[in-house]
Amino acid sequence: MNGSIRDRRAGEVAALRARDRLDDLTKPAGSLGQLETLLERIARITERPVPQLERPHLLLFAADHGVTEEGVSAYPAEVTGQMVVNICRGGAVSSVLARAEGVHLTVVDVGVRVPVEHPGVVARKVAPGTRNLAAGPAMTRAEAEAAVTAGRETAEAALAAGADVLLLGEMGIGNTTAASALAAYLLERPAADVVGRGTGVDPARLAHKRAVVDRALALHRPHLRDPWDIMTRLGGLELAAMAGVCLVAASRRVPVLLDGFITTAAALWAVTVDPAAAEVLLASHVSAEPGHRLLLERLHLDPLLRLGLRLGEGSGALLAWPLVRLACRVLAETATFSDARVTRA
Amino acid sequence: MNGSIRDRRAGEVAALRARDRLDDLTKPAGSLGQLETLLERIARITERPVPQLERPHLLLFAADHGVTEEGVSAYPAEVTGQMVVNICRGGAVSSVLARAEGVHLTVVDVGVRVPVEHPGVVARKVAPGTRNLAAGPAMTRAEAEAAVTAGRETAEAALAAGADVLLLGEMGIGNTTAASALAAYLLERPAADVVGRGTGVDPARLAHKRAVVDRALALHRPHLRDPWDIMTRLGGLELAAMAGVCLVAASRRVPVLLDGFITTAAALWAVTVDPAAAEVLLASHVSAEPGHRLLLERLHLDPLLRLGLRLGEGSGALLAWPLVRLACRVLAETATFSDARVTRA
Repeated sequence: MNGSIRDRRAGEVAALRARDRLDDLTKPAGSLGQLETLLERIARITERPVPQLERPHLLLFAADHGVTEEGVSAYPAEVTGQMVVNICRGGAVSSVLARAEGVHLTVVDVGVRVPVEHPGVVARKVAPGTRNLAAGPAMTRAEAEAAVTAGRETAEAALAAGADVLLLGEMGIGNTTAASALAAYLLERPAADVVGRGTGVDPARLAHKRAVVDRALALHRPHLRDPWDIMTRLGGLELAAMAGVCLVAASRRVPVLLDGFITTAAALWAVTVDPAAAEVLLASHVSAEPGHRLLLERLHLDPLLRLGLRLGEGSGALLAWPLVRLACRVLAETATFSDARVTRA
Repeated sequence: MNGSIRDRRAGEVAALRARDRLDDLTKPAGSLGQLETLLERIARITERPVPQLERPHLLLFAADHGVTEEGVSAYPAEVTGQMVVNICRGGAVSSVLARAEGVHLTVVDVGVRVPVEHPGVVARKVAPGTRNLAAGPAMTRAEAEAAVTAGRETAEAALAAGADVLLLGEMGIGNTTAASALAAYLLERPAADVVGRGTGVDPARLAHKRAVVDRALALHRPHLRDPWDIMTRLGGLELAAMAGVCLVAASRRVPVLLDGFITTAAALWAVTVDPAAAEVLLASHVSAEPGHRLLLERLHLDPLLRLGLRLGEGSGALLAWPLVRLACRVLAETATFSDARVTRA
């Protein structure tokens, strides 16, 4: 406990020093807007007044969802495995973005239904997908724990390899439904407030998807006694794994750049397990999913982008990454008023 | 006229082919949100279905403003020349961002009051600043024309050097006041709707700045018969030069990535001279200046970033540039459904 108090004080000192430096740079005070708040936050997380984030790793977790048998997705479940191969082969949007930005990409199979036939994927399959959360628990407690552990160990491996910022991504047909169930429960909202079109269901299927989530919530609510019950019954293997990443990042004071609704639902669950996880999160964007805005508000996070993205795969985190990278460069490299002999206001 | 009709048809065909390709990429239809609209627009401008923008040049124009004698800025006028040197020496925010992104930076003195003592600046000084637009015309017609020509020739030189996208930037203490006068007149709005804090005036000075703009509008309104009267009486040397860039870009079909309020005011004036200029503009961000949103709405432009920036110097364009660059990469490099053997929705 003393350790935790000391840590927080070091972060506050770093944030104040970042603030002082921002005010001393040759620019009008406050003129970088939201990027100034971002820099103070990164300084607080890393406990460094001039943080340098230069080795980003995108950790992308893939898994299938039994709830797809309810017909909640525009895509058939086989697409999860196909897209994982596409990502590993460099053909997906996230592959293109990661390559263009020099972001190290790790793709982890924590629960794809079929064997993933690509040597690039990290095999940590806990189960061949979850069970249908609208008919019973999505996972066993042991499966949820194993998936969190897979995420934890993936994060530890990335940090050991030199990562100084972690980007989260996911791939899983049906996972907006699981994330909606988690989010609705954690936010204490009805499904109608959080369920959206996902990657593109039509209005009829949207109404059905909401009904499925409400049915799942009614089924499981009497059995949700602790955070692990929530993840076990309503969650998913990639959701649990991403939460594991957040928990490691919290203890190691490493920033986590979230992607969309699904990564943010996983992060909010991690915060219910360890409130310190809230301190290391950065919001890349707010998506078209209505629940995403609500999750970000609950976490007091201000997204960098508002582009109506709804792709997943870490694509929003990858698109926001240059802003984080550039903000750090500005703090480190801009001249001060005295250095540059520029008159102050 | 036939040439112009043919050109527009080529642009429409390219935009439709970009749209078709976007729908064939291995991602949910429409899931890149606003970036998909951006890509269609760039295809339309460049008449290329898969546009590749790889050689960005930031053209940054600096000038002083006689209206500073009214006390409208938080900074003394000497800061313009000091900041131009700082930008050329690599110490300003825009220098840091341009360096980090590999954007070629050209700094042009079109009207700094004092001699700019740096070999890196392009010397195109039309006059040592404008006169006080609240007391009389800011420029002579010959000065306004010479400044537009300086902008045109700077743009032509950048294109000759290989630029395939132009970013606009400006530096000039007092230039939010001139831009506000231009914007208020062109938008037919009172000063109160468009005048903001600029780089940071306090509430009392904000009220004074609004009064100065209203006084200028009342003084000049009877004499504003054509677009050149507007620029001559209410504008500024860097505003005229940036408009010249937009006019060249329109005829050469090259995208122009705007920065903040001041660059957008210059672009709207260019559109009054040549409506085709409207077609080549891209909005990087919407700033904290209230008039910026109004200008973007008039130009039917949707900004990529909403970060509350109010710095200028092309900083917003530089921060949005990675999104443009990455969007083009995604369109060019993402696998199609048939290539990747992924099942469609």
